[in-house]
Amino acid sequence: MYDIAIIGAGPAGLNASIYAARYGLKAVVIGAVTGGLAGTTHEIGNWLGTEKITGFELVQNMVKHAKSYGTPIIERVVENIKKIDNGFEVEIAGTDPVQSRTVLLATGTTHRHLGLPNEAKFIGKGVSYCATCDGFFYRGKTVAVVGGNDAAAMAASYLGDIAEKVYLVYRKEPLRAEQFWQNAIAKNPKIEIIYNTVVKDVFGEGKVASIKVADVAGQEKDLAVDGIFIEIGSEPNSDLFRDLGVESDEQGFIKIKNDGSTTTEGIWAAGDLTDGSNKFRQIVTAAAEGAIATASISKYLKQKLAV
Amino acid sequence: MYDIAIIGAGPAGLNASIYAARYGLKAVVIGAVTGGLAGTTHEIGNWLGTEKITGFELVQNMVKHAKSYGTPIIERVVENIKKIDNGFEVEIAGTDPVQSRTVLLATGTTHRHLGLPNEAKFIGKGVSYCATCDGFFYRGKTVAVVGGNDAAAMAASYLGDIAEKVYLVYRKEPLRAEQFWQNAIAKNPKIEIIYNTVVKDVFGEGKVASIKVADVAGQEKDLAVDGIFIEIGSEPNSDLFRDLGVESDEQGFIKIKNDGSTTTEGIWAAGDLTDGSNKFRQIVTAAAEGAIATASISKYLKQKLAV
Repeated sequence: MYDIAIIGAGPAGLNASIYAARYGLKAVVIGAVTGGLAGTTHEIGNWLGTEKITGFELVQNMVKHAKSYGTPIIERVVENIKKIDNGFEVEIAGTDPVQSRTVLLATGTTHRHLGLPNEAKFIGKGVSYCATCDGFFYRGKTVAVVGGNDAAAMAASYLGDIAEKVYLVYRKEPLRAEQFWQNAIAKNPKIEIIYNTVVKDVFGEGKVASIKVADVAGQEKDLAVDGIFIEIGSEPNSDLFRDLGVESDEQGFIKIKNDGSTTTEGIWAAGDLTDGSNKFRQIVTAAAEGAIATASISKYLKQKLAV
Repeated sequence: MYDIAIIGAGPAGLNASIYAARYGLKAVVIGAVTGGLAGTTHEIGNWLGTEKITGFELVQNMVKHAKSYGTPIIERVVENIKKIDNGFEVEIAGTDPVQSRTVLLATGTTHRHLGLPNEAKFIGKGVSYCATCDGFFYRGKTVAVVGGNDAAAMAASYLGDIAEKVYLVYRKEPLRAEQFWQNAIAKNPKIEIIYNTVVKDVFGEGKVASIKVADVAGQEKDLAVDGIFIEIGSEPNSDLFRDLGVESDEQGFIKIKNDGSTTTEGIWAAGDLTDGSNKFRQIVTAAAEGAIATASISKYLKQKLAV
């Protein structure tokens, strides 16, 4: 029986596993995507102490760090979590379940879709949610990026270095992104921002060839593009936990107290999945939440054993 | 006039400066001790992605990172902060004052010292003020913990899982710590409590080898130890800000809201100085608070300029 089963292997889960090991707790990490979304980020410039690093590389370092404590990382999908005597049982796809006194939910978020009529049909055929993963295939081509946040601006900037032409389509004006990314975009003549405009649908024969956009006045036009990168935010991966009685907010983000605990005894949550850190979802805030939750779990287990 | 004057150059302040630069804010960092307390930790094993690093080295990386954005870091003592029209004026020892629209307080804490004749000499060489930071390096060794409060009992309990032998030296009887910590200690045969006893001094050749203790009757004896953890509390460096009307808790830690703002408009706080992060004061939680506060300040300034 483990002391703590950490569901999710992103920065929150990995940092939790490091703190757990240092507290002398027996921990296991279960997550299909080691490094989480952080691993798909093209360039990270705000991880304190590291001027510039790819998400892939930073995540490799984190995984190596976590593994240095001997904590098992099971790279599989969690199928179910159920209450048992003295703790929880975590059911894992394709392997034996694990039992644990406490559970830390750290499954992060998934990229939000636009919901266009043809969107799903073109995923992997020109519709992408990850510029870092897929941008390389658009060398010398024309692409659209949809969104106005940091991720959208970063994607546009990155694609501006690869593609021949980048449209950044945003439904409002101005962009919400950090000034740093706005400056980067302003400097690149290949990037054209189309404000106050939404995407209506995506078209092509087998792969994306164009998108239809509409401005606030309803004026529609077609843009010839080879790919469309949808960067409109993300949704919490919290469906799995509904049956555990864990309370979440209207958007599905798990409500946590100051110590990372949820409304269900024995269950904590950390990282992008929660409503913590003033909802400022960064690698550093996820890592911090993982640390805080683990300190709280350590205290809880000592109290329980003392009773 | 700066957008944000960051008071304190530890992880909270440095990370705030990086986020500020990326938001396009004009920031200045003022702090006499670059790196803050983190810089005095002899080995850091829980900075995610970095298996092992000295506090000095980690802090050097953080300062280099902050400076890469061109943000000025004034390595001097702040003498006073006063309200002026549209912001604040920060008076600095030995140089001109700076003016800023907002202020981020990130001056951290100071560990309370015992005041032993040899104490300062052995800091980082067996004398520690942070069991969570340094305890891991005493696996299989003998340590003393000094104090009787929650932090001391928690440190003894934590070290009891790692070290071979733990003396908990307290000047009174019984411990002041919560019962559950006392129970945790009672259950661990590796922890020996020495009541009604004070530490007189610490000795060794280059690193700690023993401490001299004295009971209430003045009876002295030597204890062979590899390390001594002084857990008699820490104090927030918050004296400077009292006149600004910033509210703090009974211990002087600045009360912050979820977004890092204080009870005084235009003033935010981040890091060990605050009552945030469930009072779990770590480098990663300080850095996260710095990021969260800066995001909030950026929003505040945009709103103000928009008005």
